[in-house]
Amino acid sequence: MASNKGVIFKAIPDSFPVIGEHMELVTREIDIKNFPLADGDILLKNQYLSLDPYLRGRMRDSQIESIADAFKLGKVLEGHGIGTVVKSNNRKYQVGDYYYGFIGWEEYTHVPADAVSGDEGLEKEISKSELPKSYFLGLFGMPGFTAYIGLNKIGKAKKGETIFISAASGAVGQVVGQIAKIKGLCVIGSADEELTKLCPNGIDIYFDNVGGETLDIALNHLKINARVIACGMISQYNTKNPYGVKNLMNVVTKRLLIQGFIVFDHYHEMEPFQKEMREWLKQGKLKYKEDLVEGIQNAPNAFLNLLTGKNFGKAVVKIC
Amino acid sequence: MASNKGVIFKAIPDSFPVIGEHMELVTREIDIKNFPLADGDILLKNQYLSLDPYLRGRMRDSQIESIADAFKLGKVLEGHGIGTVVKSNNRKYQVGDYYYGFIGWEEYTHVPADAVSGDEGLEKEISKSELPKSYFLGLFGMPGFTAYIGLNKIGKAKKGETIFISAASGAVGQVVGQIAKIKGLCVIGSADEELTKLCPNGIDIYFDNVGGETLDIALNHLKINARVIACGMISQYNTKNPYGVKNLMNVVTKRLLIQGFIVFDHYHEMEPFQKEMREWLKQGKLKYKEDLVEGIQNAPNAFLNLLTGKNFGKAVVKIC
Ligand SMILES: NC(=O)c1ccc[n+]([C@@H]2O[C@H](COP(=O)([O-])OP(=O)(O)OC[C@H]3O[C@@H](n4cnc5c(N)ncnc54)[C@H](OP(=O)(O)O)[C@@H]3O)[C@@H](O)[C@H]2O)c1
Ligand SMILES: NC(=O)c1ccc[n+]([C@@H]2O[C@H](COP(=O)([O-])OP(=O)(O)OC[C@H]3O[C@@H](n4cnc5c(N)ncnc54)[C@H](OP(=O)(O)O)[C@@H]3O)[C@@H](O)[C@H]2O)c1
Repeated sequence: MASNKGVIFKAIPDSFPVIGEHMELVTREIDIKNFPLADGDILLKNQYLSLDPYLRGRMRDSQIESIADAFKLGKVLEGHGIGTVVKSNNRKYQVGDYYYGFIGWEEYTHVPADAVSGDEGLEKEISKSELPKSYFLGLFGMPGFTAYIGLNKIGKAKKGETIFISAASGAVGQVVGQIAKIKGLCVIGSADEELTKLCPNGIDIYFDNVGGETLDIALNHLKINARVIACGMISQYNTKNPYGVKNLMNVVTKRLLIQGFIVFDHYHEMEPFQKEMREWLKQGKLKYKEDLVEGIQNAPNAFLNLLTGKNFGKAVVKIC
Repeated sequence: MASNKGVIFKAIPDSFPVIGEHMELVTREIDIKNFPLADGDILLKNQYLSLDPYLRGRMRDSQIESIADAFKLGKVLEGHGIGTVVKSNNRKYQVGDYYYGFIGWEEYTHVPADAVSGDEGLEKEISKSELPKSYFLGLFGMPGFTAYIGLNKIGKAKKGETIFISAASGAVGQVVGQIAKIKGLCVIGSADEELTKLCPNGIDIYFDNVGGETLDIALNHLKINARVIACGMISQYNTKNPYGVKNLMNVVTKRLLIQGFIVFDHYHEMEPFQKEMREWLKQGKLKYKEDLVEGIQNAPNAFLNLLTGKNFGKAVVKIC
């Protein structure tokens, strides 16, 4: 018998989730050897769990539709992660193989046949790559790709332009800033300094990760024909009373374009992203900062840190 | 000697302009026969003055930059208009010719050489057209072209889509609605009714003329990949405390596009607009509603009606 610590979704939070009240740590036992697997099932020993802001959006009433399914009350929380197969009744997976897909916030996850959604391409890469495996949850994963698609496809960033990035040290933001520099943009990555001083001529592109007041201020500093890449609004994820954005008249007078996007819509275009990123990393043009905590018992607190801006770099939990 | 009634810009309004306080009616005398004209000058007898919401934006401190120049305190207000030349020292204009361009809110306007900005093409059209001359200030003028460019170029409206238009009976809105119908869109032209009932499947395009709360509500009713044509935000033109828009997170989750534009940027593309509009009007597919008041002394009140939504149709002052 092994212990299988995990985090249960206990109640729907109105504002910031509270440990014990909305997320509860439980320790269960698991008999790996005798674990019953139906046809197609696999059992994973989890290695890395990615903590992402959008998971907060899944802590909602399941009646409300949104991008990703609501978490089920009483069940273990989920997220993108990497595990190794410890038992398999699935032709595609042998014991020892990597699994890249949704896992539970727990040490071992039983994935039933109909939920097996591993990404074969990435799993092969992960097993042969010399990079830290966790990089595939960030730099080469969803957040990195979000940065790449947001900047290139949605924002059509061009050399010589000035870009302002909010949450610039985060998982998405740090990649946006570095790609923007590689492409020859002038990058402003902090909201703390006065934008007027830093961008006396205004901003061409605002890569918006936080929304709310930062967006409101940015609208006043945008140039004519500037664009806003609406990637996320993390400042609004933990409140029922969203901030009211007052400076939208700039959209008309400055002919602004505000474009939202969801990275999942673009997954079929991953190839050039992975190729370029690998190249830049090899050439030393790209650096990557992770905010790693160890042990699944520390996931709830790390998640709260992410939601309050206390992380520095991509938030990842190293499970074993 | 003739009388030359006019409206003076007296003070900068903080909210709604007040007649007497910010706009003042004055009666001056003018000696048309002996009126001194420098080289290139003309003297107009004004016929029609267009009242447009953007004029409110010109009633500001001249230190603040915006789309159109600030009005000068103590001087007569201006606007798009049509006049006839009663005296000319300009090779291009003979007495009796039509003039289409900026005129004063007054019965006679002296246009100094460097301010003569008449649109020759339109002036020829106006003199030979059988349509009411005032149509060139609305249907065939700036507001009609705004509708056309906004819907086609900015909004890329397609047959079968559902469009919601605010201020749908106004100068721009009535043309948007009719072109949208001609193009086979499903048109919702009122914010009074519940949008959920009228568009149970959501809105593809929101043509926004008013901004503020209407925009906020519309954001909740837009479909995935919908777009907002940000044409104007008239609900915010008379306040120092803009409405705070709370539902912007829809921009991310629904991958919305919000695009502002200013019609002046597109004036070089007027030809197809005029051709199509004329054709549709001839075929009876297009109707046009004006809200006409007579006498320049009634301009201030008609302008206030426009700013409070009491107009029905394009607001025009018939001066003589
Ligand atoms: N559209 C998509 O498909 C897509 C995909 C991935 C992520 N996203 C979005 O992108 C954004 C960044 O995600 P990420 O994974 O890279 O997270 P992250 O930036 O690593 O972490 C969140 C960061 O947000 C800032 N923040 C947290 N709470 C805040 C608050 N109340 N007000 C203002 N800022 C706050 C903090 O940055 P500072 O310390 O610098 O303040 C914090 O480090 C999120 O909004 C996320 O939802 C969107
Ligand atoms: N982007 C451009 O280049 C451009 C060019 C021309 C015009 N515009 C803009 O387009 C919009 C319409 O202009 P227009 O010339 O066609 O004017 P209009 O629609 O003929 O007249 C204004 C209309 O706005 C509505 N309204 C007035 N005050 C309001 C308030 N406080 N809250 C909500 N609605 C209010 C009323 O419609 P209801 O009676 O239906 O409420 C009123 O009839 C304006 O915002 C204008 O600035 C933009």
